Amino acid sequence: MESIPLSQSDAVWSANHEFYRAFTGRDATAMDAIWAREAPVTCVHPGWTPLAGRAAVLKSWHDILANPESPRVMCHDDRAVLHGDIALVLCEEELETGHLIATNIFIREANEWRMIHHQASPLVVRSAERDARPRRQDRRR
Amino acid sequence: MESIPLSQSDAVWSANHEFYRAFTGRDATAMDAIWAREAPVTCVHPGWTPLAGRAAVLKSWHDILANPESPRVMCHDDRAVLHGDIALVLCEEELETGHLIATNIFIREANEWRMIHHQASPLVVRSAERDARPRRQDRRR
Repeated sequence: MESIPLSQSDAVWSANHEFYRAFTGRDATAMDAIWAREAPVTCVHPGWTPLAGRAAVLKSWHDILANPESPRVMCHDDRAVLHGDIALVLCEEELETGHLIATNIFIREANEWRMIHHQASPLVVRSAERDARPRRQDRRR
Repeated sequence: MESIPLSQSDAVWSANHEFYRAFTGRDATAMDAIWAREAPVTCVHPGWTPLAGRAAVLKSWHDILANPESPRVMCHDDRAVLHGDIALVLCEEELETGHLIATNIFIREANEWRMIHHQASPLVVRSAERDARPRRQDRRR
């Protein structure tokens, strides 16, 4: 039987999930494979100034994956937007210590979707329709 | 005399500066013009869940620009990376209350660079070579 080719959206989602699998699985080889080889790459870790270039970005990820105190991350509410050979995935990262919002950007390179940018930043306010839990500050209004 | 056409990098930088000019100048018309008309747009304001779609994104900006307590923002250390008709600009946003790191993404649409995504997140740790102050502990990663 022939395999059914993934749609481009499915392929992007798959690449995004592979990024989180590598992250949580502490898989430096897989993390290395996820990032683009030809296109320039950049990364903004939470709270930090941007990193630019494959060597700097991958070194940061290798340090994170080698640190036993680094969090495990679950990705959910991921949505992909395709712009030709560039795709944006916005998703929520769930850590033991809180939630982050990530923008992951992929490029189609050698017929694979490879990451060119990652930015994760703290999530403070959840949208009302997605989370009915009482908010911390707004009950007095 | 003929005007000398801008390089694509210069045109992207110009679009990025126009975004901050509109922001700080409380110019809702200019802000509206900056965002793409055809390509889907998304936005992550600091601490918030992502907004998707031109109506939701522009409403958030109109609310920000109409709020007299909204901060004025200066952009610096901007660097642009072009990937064909998509460009990423990473820059630092300086507010009276602190610093943010922004990723601004533009698409070439109708021969203009128009914004398709903005994410701004708090800057906690500055790079050693740019700032010799002691680093705070990276609590997340």
